[in-house]
Amino acid sequence: MTKCSVYVATSLDGYISRRDGSIDWLNDCNALVPKGEDLGYAQFMSSVDALVMGRNTFEQVLTFGTWHYGDTPIVVLSRQLKSLPEDVSDTVSLSADEPGKLVERLSARKWKHLYVDGGLTVQSFLSAGLIDDIIITTIPILLGEGKPLFGPLPNDVELEHVSSQAFEFGFVQSKYRVVKSA
Amino acid sequence: MTKCSVYVATSLDGYISRRDGSIDWLNDCNALVPKGEDLGYAQFMSSVDALVMGRNTFEQVLTFGTWHYGDTPIVVLSRQLKSLPEDVSDTVSLSADEPGKLVERLSARKWKHLYVDGGLTVQSFLSAGLIDDIIITTIPILLGEGKPLFGPLPNDVELEHVSSQAFEFGFVQSKYRVVKSA
Repeated sequence: MTKCSVYVATSLDGYISRRDGSIDWLNDCNALVPKGEDLGYAQFMSSVDALVMGRNTFEQVLTFGTWHYGDTPIVVLSRQLKSLPEDVSDTVSLSADEPGKLVERLSARKWKHLYVDGGLTVQSFLSAGLIDDIIITTIPILLGEGKPLFGPLPNDVELEHVSSQAFEFGFVQSKYRVVKSA
Repeated sequence: MTKCSVYVATSLDGYISRRDGSIDWLNDCNALVPKGEDLGYAQFMSSVDALVMGRNTFEQVLTFGTWHYGDTPIVVLSRQLKSLPEDVSDTVSLSADEPGKLVERLSARKWKHLYVDGGLTVQSFLSAGLIDDIIITTIPILLGEGKPLFGPLPNDVELEHVSSQAFEFGFVQSKYRVVKSA
């Protein structure tokens, strides 16, 4: 089965960005990270066959200026968008599929590992019981409001803690496995 | 100055209880904790001169059946309550003070360390810039909804990560110090 992982940073109060989408606070904190420390990102990315993200996250990615994803395919989930900007990398495709349908379709392409990114997309995959792993890096700040990583769920989701690592610059990264009910 | 600490358990999505106040999920997870392991609670409690909690938390405490606080004074914050139940321990008192006023008053009694408990109370103390330390134990479960530990803030609150400990039964406890702006 194709595995779906979340790899994300949040404030201690669980936000992935401010309400307007800005991640100034994350950039400020990232400035404290020593050169060469990538919190396992490169290793994680090398295990991934494709990224799945919502339109909001994708639009934020486009503002970064540099392309962080190399040749890794990106599927942008949107029911509204009919086409992608012309100058976008040809590794990017658009889909209006429901999470379950999408995973099934990408699985048929022999994509074994998907990186699911963005609050609403993570929430819809979690609600559909499709997330296997969550790697969450907690940034030592409280924002008070913003876009939350997690949202409503149809049921409790039981997790298995895999490992945690505290970095000397104050970030704490924890890995969890989602316990799938039999 | 009197120090104010938070010592609390939350789900990975940041809830301290379900919407109706129930902590069945926490009790279920606590059943996994080996006898004799108290996650530093006794040591923390021995450093505390008094607890400050809201009415909701206090009413929950009363449902526990056993009294966990020994002789440690408890101040119940409420603007609505006019009196406490008659059979309540005489270590419990009622206050309608604002957080700043209360800390000032308790400080004058030479109480050096307050344990601030309950979501709304923690939020009002954080908003008033009165919390010094946060010890947060993350339980490996997602609830989807409930009463959140954190809430709106007038400003970002910068934290200093002090330490983290992952327990073999899946809880992760992290200690943070609130960075007070000069």
